[in-house]
Amino acid sequence: SYSTDVRTVTLIPGDGIGPEISAAVQKIFTAANVPIVWEEVDVTPVKGPDGKFGIPPSAIESVNRNGIGLKGPLMTPVGKGHRSLNLAIRKEFNLYANVRPCRSIEGYETLYNDVDVVTIRENTEGEYSGIEHEIVDGVVQSIKLITEPASRRVAEYAFQYARNNGRSKVTAVHKANIMRMSDGLFLRCCREAAEKNPDIRFEEKYLDTVCLNMVQDPSQYDVLVMPNLYGDILSDLCAGLVGGLGLTPSGNIGEGGAVFESVHGTAPDIAGQDKANPTALLLSAVMMLRFMNLYKHAEIIERACFETIKEGNYRTGDLGGKAKCSEFTNEICSKIDVLQ
Amino acid sequence: SYSTDVRTVTLIPGDGIGPEISAAVQKIFTAANVPIVWEEVDVTPVKGPDGKFGIPPSAIESVNRNGIGLKGPLMTPVGKGHRSLNLAIRKEFNLYANVRPCRSIEGYETLYNDVDVVTIRENTEGEYSGIEHEIVDGVVQSIKLITEPASRRVAEYAFQYARNNGRSKVTAVHKANIMRMSDGLFLRCCREAAEKNPDIRFEEKYLDTVCLNMVQDPSQYDVLVMPNLYGDILSDLCAGLVGGLGLTPSGNIGEGGAVFESVHGTAPDIAGQDKANPTALLLSAVMMLRFMNLYKHAEIIERACFETIKEGNYRTGDLGGKAKCSEFTNEICSKIDVLQ
Ligand SMILES: CC(C)[C@H](C(=O)O)[C@@H](O)C(=O)O
Ligand SMILES: CC(C)[C@H](C(=O)O)[C@@H](O)C(=O)O
Repeated sequence: SYSTDVRTVTLIPGDGIGPEISAAVQKIFTAANVPIVWEEVDVTPVKGPDGKFGIPPSAIESVNRNGIGLKGPLMTPVGKGHRSLNLAIRKEFNLYANVRPCRSIEGYETLYNDVDVVTIRENTEGEYSGIEHEIVDGVVQSIKLITEPASRRVAEYAFQYARNNGRSKVTAVHKANIMRMSDGLFLRCCREAAEKNPDIRFEEKYLDTVCLNMVQDPSQYDVLVMPNLYGDILSDLCAGLVGGLGLTPSGNIGEGGAVFESVHGTAPDIAGQDKANPTALLLSAVMMLRFMNLYKHAEIIERACFETIKEGNYRTGDLGGKAKCSEFTNEICSKIDVLQ
Repeated sequence: SYSTDVRTVTLIPGDGIGPEISAAVQKIFTAANVPIVWEEVDVTPVKGPDGKFGIPPSAIESVNRNGIGLKGPLMTPVGKGHRSLNLAIRKEFNLYANVRPCRSIEGYETLYNDVDVVTIRENTEGEYSGIEHEIVDGVVQSIKLITEPASRRVAEYAFQYARNNGRSKVTAVHKANIMRMSDGLFLRCCREAAEKNPDIRFEEKYLDTVCLNMVQDPSQYDVLVMPNLYGDILSDLCAGLVGGLGLTPSGNIGEGGAVFESVHGTAPDIAGQDKANPTALLLSAVMMLRFMNLYKHAEIIERACFETIKEGNYRTGDLGGKAKCSEFTNEICSKIDVLQ
């Protein structure tokens, strides 16, 4: 559906190490002649006419106009009442599915070498509804909100994703033995989506069981779909299996657009020192390219990145190496020159 | 506080493999001359005068009278409206802290060999409140209930447990960045308990971060305390690191008593075939002995069990061996004979 005409992508460089790793991605994209132009925006909250702080209208318009964004890590202002800016963006653009592939990286050793799973997380409601009350002193309730439209949408997306990516199984992850009505509704929507997609295998598992199995034998899982909080937990667990959040991409998919982001922190301790590892943001950008049907560019960049990590001469500090961010980036660019 | 006089312990053998593994524990306790007598009860729900099904009064009275119980796995009747019988017991006796130590077992290899953590889970409320509503068609809310008394009680228990067991750190696990009020309240109670227990180190971590770190380097954790659902998840994850629920004990601690239980399933496929592994129930029974201050008996039984697993000649099928439950049990009894 996307042509190879030059398209504009909104770039939210982010805070801390965000600007350096964003610059690294831009440099690599230039080396690979990716036919996009960047539109850089600042999402630091500004006071609106109603006196409330929010994402600047110009940034919102940019994402809405372009339909595609790439985003570095954002710092959430400290203090009560400030909700996470990372979450605000998912909410603002109604990015209903959070997709996090986790694959073992060849040559980068962890305890596991056969991880290849994708967590698909409902991204708009559930435990993240933000509805909480103090009923009486010392008694608080938080509301987990599960709706049929949101559950159905993400369930159907999971099967579609599985098919489009040559995957064969979707596991619905739940605690419907405890939250019978809410997780029960989510599960029902998954079952219905499974019936409409008989070419993809379907199974249902308790979240606790999945966590137990995942650390014993991740190869038994493929695509996993689940409510918001469970996805938060399980995606981090899976990232841990392959080396952490510095190596795993993430995409937030909506009806009117998609925002791809690295989900590690802003690492203020090393910010501005040319030490950061841009891999997570780069692999998120590669996911974005595939989303835009720019498969060849995605392929070349991904290969150059993985080869660089595998060879091991230009690893950044977080991977046990001594390379600067710029050295790692340059090595990837050199490899791209050779590959294309 | 407990004397070495003979005490009575309520035994709930459970369903499926429950009776065989309970018999194994009883045999081992006899071999070790543990000064207790068993009072066996059946907890299969019966119809009360109000027409509702519930745990039989005689079983409830037994636990209340003895203050100590050991419980095998219980099957939950299939069908809507039946809540888990395992949970019903935790609730009935107000067993507020669920304690699950997870330690690598020498000689039984997994990817990890340095696991030694204890999850302490709030056991009475949180996501397990059971309060759910369908607000309108297709919109469901589940209520997570966090109260100050329950949070404070389990937080204080965690520090007390750490001190009594020679442990040095308590980690509060939360998502107060998302559930600011409910997890915020839980966290505040943990901080207050930390202030009262300055001899024990204290730290706070997000649940997703703990999952990520736990699979990379479990040695960084010690005692962890958290709301109900997080404990369900994290305890299974940790069990996975050391070999699964067949090897990990569990204790439910209340003000008026405690029930120790294996948390694996009833394994109906192998029930009655003398194939089940009684280790989880046996180690739960060992926890129970320590709770009753029967340290010497606990020590001997635990050692005999670990030595038997380590030697490897009498492992049950789940551990890759060919031994029957009775052969494994007899070997432990022989070792106890030598040890005492
Ligand atoms: C930053 C935080 C609010 C966020 C979340 O809880 O979703 C993060 O953990 C993530 O997984 O993207
Ligand atoms: C059986 C089930 C209801 C229970 C739970 O969710 O707590 C189990 O997973 C556990 O951890 O004891």
